[in-house]
Amino acid sequence: MPEKRHPIPKGFLLSTAKAGIKYPTKKPTRLDMALIYSEVDAVISGTFTTNKIKGAPVKLCMERISSGKGRAIVINSGNSNVATGTEGLKDAYYMASLTARALGIDERLTYVASTGVIGVRLPMKRIEEGIGKLITGLGGSTPLDVAHAIMTTDTFPKIISKRVRFGGKAATMLGIAKGAGMIAPKMATMLCFIITDLNVEGTALDSALKEAVEGSFNRITIDGDMSTSDTALIMANGAAGNPLIKKTSKDYKGFKEAVFEITYGLSRLIATDGEGATKLIEVAIEGARTESDALRAAFSVANSSLVKTAIYGNDINWGRVIAALGRSGAELKEEKIDIYFGNTMLVKGGVSTGLEGKGERELKKKSVLIRVVLNMGKGTARVLTCDLTEDYIKINAEYRT
Amino acid sequence: MPEKRHPIPKGFLLSTAKAGIKYPTKKPTRLDMALIYSEVDAVISGTFTTNKIKGAPVKLCMERISSGKGRAIVINSGNSNVATGTEGLKDAYYMASLTARALGIDERLTYVASTGVIGVRLPMKRIEEGIGKLITGLGGSTPLDVAHAIMTTDTFPKIISKRVRFGGKAATMLGIAKGAGMIAPKMATMLCFIITDLNVEGTALDSALKEAVEGSFNRITIDGDMSTSDTALIMANGAAGNPLIKKTSKDYKGFKEAVFEITYGLSRLIATDGEGATKLIEVAIEGARTESDALRAAFSVANSSLVKTAIYGNDINWGRVIAALGRSGAELKEEKIDIYFGNTMLVKGGVSTGLEGKGERELKKKSVLIRVVLNMGKGTARVLTCDLTEDYIKINAEYRT
Repeated sequence: MPEKRHPIPKGFLLSTAKAGIKYPTKKPTRLDMALIYSEVDAVISGTFTTNKIKGAPVKLCMERISSGKGRAIVINSGNSNVATGTEGLKDAYYMASLTARALGIDERLTYVASTGVIGVRLPMKRIEEGIGKLITGLGGSTPLDVAHAIMTTDTFPKIISKRVRFGGKAATMLGIAKGAGMIAPKMATMLCFIITDLNVEGTALDSALKEAVEGSFNRITIDGDMSTSDTALIMANGAAGNPLIKKTSKDYKGFKEAVFEITYGLSRLIATDGEGATKLIEVAIEGARTESDALRAAFSVANSSLVKTAIYGNDINWGRVIAALGRSGAELKEEKIDIYFGNTMLVKGGVSTGLEGKGERELKKKSVLIRVVLNMGKGTARVLTCDLTEDYIKINAEYRT
Repeated sequence: MPEKRHPIPKGFLLSTAKAGIKYPTKKPTRLDMALIYSEVDAVISGTFTTNKIKGAPVKLCMERISSGKGRAIVINSGNSNVATGTEGLKDAYYMASLTARALGIDERLTYVASTGVIGVRLPMKRIEEGIGKLITGLGGSTPLDVAHAIMTTDTFPKIISKRVRFGGKAATMLGIAKGAGMIAPKMATMLCFIITDLNVEGTALDSALKEAVEGSFNRITIDGDMSTSDTALIMANGAAGNPLIKKTSKDYKGFKEAVFEITYGLSRLIATDGEGATKLIEVAIEGARTESDALRAAFSVANSSLVKTAIYGNDINWGRVIAALGRSGAELKEEKIDIYFGNTMLVKGGVSTGLEGKGERELKKKSVLIRVVLNMGKGTARVLTCDLTEDYIKINAEYRT
């Protein structure tokens, strides 16, 4: 769980507001808007949902990100502004332009992210009032406030921060994310914002983010439902004064690893907070014919409702794991498959080792490792997920009603 | 729900027994073995799971079915004899040979089907005793007994029967199936046995079954988990004395339709009995660019946990439907999508019609139709599924423990 005080990178100001986006009340009680603002032009990069239905804010970000420059990100929760047609798209652009005007910056440097219910127009009057509050309170919020403001079904705020040193200069990296359901492969999680005062060249920022997202957010699955709003943005404003990090710099590797540490840390927090989850599940495939076979096998196990309910029920049911492997499309031979739960080998060469009793102790842990060795080649993959419980059903049967 | 008395096709004898396969007790209380026996050589055809991990009985059936001939099917529930290695395969063959010897028939005409827990060796002593009871009681069981004997997590027995007339002769078709979980596309349901006294040529039987399965069992999904035991067998013994039905006969079309009626009826029963389900959901896609696009879109919606929990919660959340369409891989344009729940148009051209209130009444029904018109071409597809409830979790977290 996040520490209380996360540092804010130099030259960034945060703000949050209670705008009553989801429930109109005279006195909204919940933070539901946030603003991330850089005092100087920053380099920006992003990855977005590959769902063919994309939210209006995603369309706006995808259009603007090609400039590689950013100053501000304005965010709301409670309504995702998805499937709202051309009017919804206008709302997203208007949200950006209002924010830019109030900040006195170029509106093309202003990005928007929204999360929440699909198919309902944004309450623009409340958004307008919210933006007013964000401007008035600029600089008065903490990373924790921002993390709270962007939550929907999340049960805890998700923040990872890091103090780093490059080229003799101290700098800060801060990542804030939200996500608990509608989490599936090929995405960039629901929402993730990383800001840093490091001085980084655009292409280096871009490739570090894409590589980090591929190995972290794109390796989580909670329910196999891909969101229409997935957005990960990273902004670097150079306020730390370090020599420019390029892809060819010796500092690039360290920077790339730091970005990955943040996205991987946030991925673990998201999987841990999977809707209704009681346990984090890590599926590790080894010895697949290829890496893509390994990924296919890992996602097939991680997406299996039967595997996930068995883990929830403390049932050492490796039969459901082998069934999920068999339908994954990965090349395999039954008689070559070994399966471990934690360090306990349950299946050797496709048949039971009789160690189910010992394996059951692994299931009592908060974090369960399912390791499969296919003995077909050298492909490996790791995917994070969580167990499937009655609370997932409750949350999703009752959400919005 | 099935009627009390289903007819048995002429020349077939049924038998069931309490063998205590799952729980060894002195006096087993549950029917868990069944025998379907034809007094004369019958023509047989089958379809099987496409999971790369296949149960030992599936391997046996796949090997023997090429002869096109059958006399007996011996079945047990409580243990699927999957992932049991070469010893498990020997058990399946031994089960067939014991049955054949006791019946005095060629063991190559004897088929085996098993359903239940994966990865545990069959209790062969109890299987042997069970086969003894099946032989002693041969002809003493009803279709309902057989349907009961093959159930696992099913909450009701699944039977569809039909009286037919071909070439001036009255005949009977009887279909019995089981399945409630681990139900997913590309399969032939968990277990399905169809017997008829019609006189049918092997190739006609084969193509009628395959076409029927493709349009029915292969269009159900409960949890996206493909079984390792899926088996559908059809046996026709000719006892009705009708002129041989060939693929070129004028009777073939009627026969094919009758087989489909049985498999489709059983499919609806399976989806209705989806583990923990309270509602049957039918997803109909129209206007897709191609039929395979339509199928992709239909399965993406039908497999969405978020759609299924929303239906359970009586939440008219079409946003989750459009998100599932967007990630399906089907070609689509957001601004062309229309979505109906029952007869109520909720989305026109990608945006809300504002009729959510009216649509909510559709959700109160036991059977919910989600109809999507993509307006991209002429591809259509229908897929059956059910809602996702707390009871699915309970059943699967507690099953086997």
